[in-house]
Amino acid sequence: MASVTLPTIRFLQQPTSQAWVEQAIASLNVVLLDHSHCERKAAGVALNLLFRYPAQSKLVHLLTTVAQEELMHFEQVNQWLERRGIALGPLPAPPYGSGLSAQVRRCEPERLLDSLLICGLIEARSHERLGLLAAYCPDSNLAKFYQSLVASEARHYGVYWTLADTYFERSTVAQRLEELAQVESRLLAALRPEPRMHS
Amino acid sequence: MASVTLPTIRFLQQPTSQAWVEQAIASLNVVLLDHSHCERKAAGVALNLLFRYPAQSKLVHLLTTVAQEELMHFEQVNQWLERRGIALGPLPAPPYGSGLSAQVRRCEPERLLDSLLICGLIEARSHERLGLLAAYCPDSNLAKFYQSLVASEARHYGVYWTLADTYFERSTVAQRLEELAQVESRLLAALRPEPRMHS
Repeated sequence: MASVTLPTIRFLQQPTSQAWVEQAIASLNVVLLDHSHCERKAAGVALNLLFRYPAQSKLVHLLTTVAQEELMHFEQVNQWLERRGIALGPLPAPPYGSGLSAQVRRCEPERLLDSLLICGLIEARSHERLGLLAAYCPDSNLAKFYQSLVASEARHYGVYWTLADTYFERSTVAQRLEELAQVESRLLAALRPEPRMHS
Repeated sequence: MASVTLPTIRFLQQPTSQAWVEQAIASLNVVLLDHSHCERKAAGVALNLLFRYPAQSKLVHLLTTVAQEELMHFEQVNQWLERRGIALGPLPAPPYGSGLSAQVRRCEPERLLDSLLICGLIEARSHERLGLLAAYCPDSNLAKFYQSLVASEARHYGVYWTLADTYFERSTVAQRLEELAQVESRLLAALRPEPRMHS
């Protein structure tokens, strides 16, 4: 498989390996099912933040839009599953999400900062990987669908970064982002046996 | 306050009292803030059901749409709050939601049936009360907004009933619905001191 050079994604310490791309393209149906779970989880995470910080009007407003978009993508991915005859169902998650959640400090306001930055990093990684799937996917219609999601994911990581920048000093944000981005890249450093959006 | 006769809502054992209407109209700002929380919680409940039953494609499809609509209403109610200068913020919930949740049996498939019917009852009550607010609200623009939500709430209780009818025998659904509807009406029988959508 020839390598395609995509622009480096801001925030991410290490780009996704070509080995992940090859594994994902060889297991597109599993990756699609996992993608459905990812979109649903992303909506859930945005909604949980709304529940946790009901008085922060900017956060409430921006994350309501994010949650709505994630639900729209969830529905779209599910239509792809149906088109390809893949049954909806559970799928064991890779350790990526729990590994990142373990980094969230328990006390406020650190908990808010870490939550926002981790959501931003996950969106940034999704943005990068959807771009890779769009570039390599042999089904041109599915590739177009992946490409259509790339811009939204970029907007979402922009939202999380904007919120972090709203509630915290920029230097504090930058320092913690670098720490968390290192953890994020480390969690993806070795290719795992199960093909997932974030494996 | 002159009483307006509205059509009786299917599912509900007892109609809302005139005393609730008077209390709510006298405390519209608090009721609006509570309404915002209700829409957010309704989106959260629909999403939780998606998480709990990821393999039930009809449920997943219909409740994705419900969650999207609830989020749209949440955003709309929040715009009303902003227009009226009401700050977003927490508000203690009345015992209605926890009283209904306590009725959910722990084992499947009863848990699913009870969850669907309770969601349907809450939507039916919201439908009834939004209709009352539309009829009595002295602010004609806000009344129009309430009226615009009435049809969605009816559609949502239709969705929950349809899902119950999909996964369970109709006689089982009807019997359990009657039991839960009695609890629901009992929880609202006495006017509570705090004005809420479901107090």
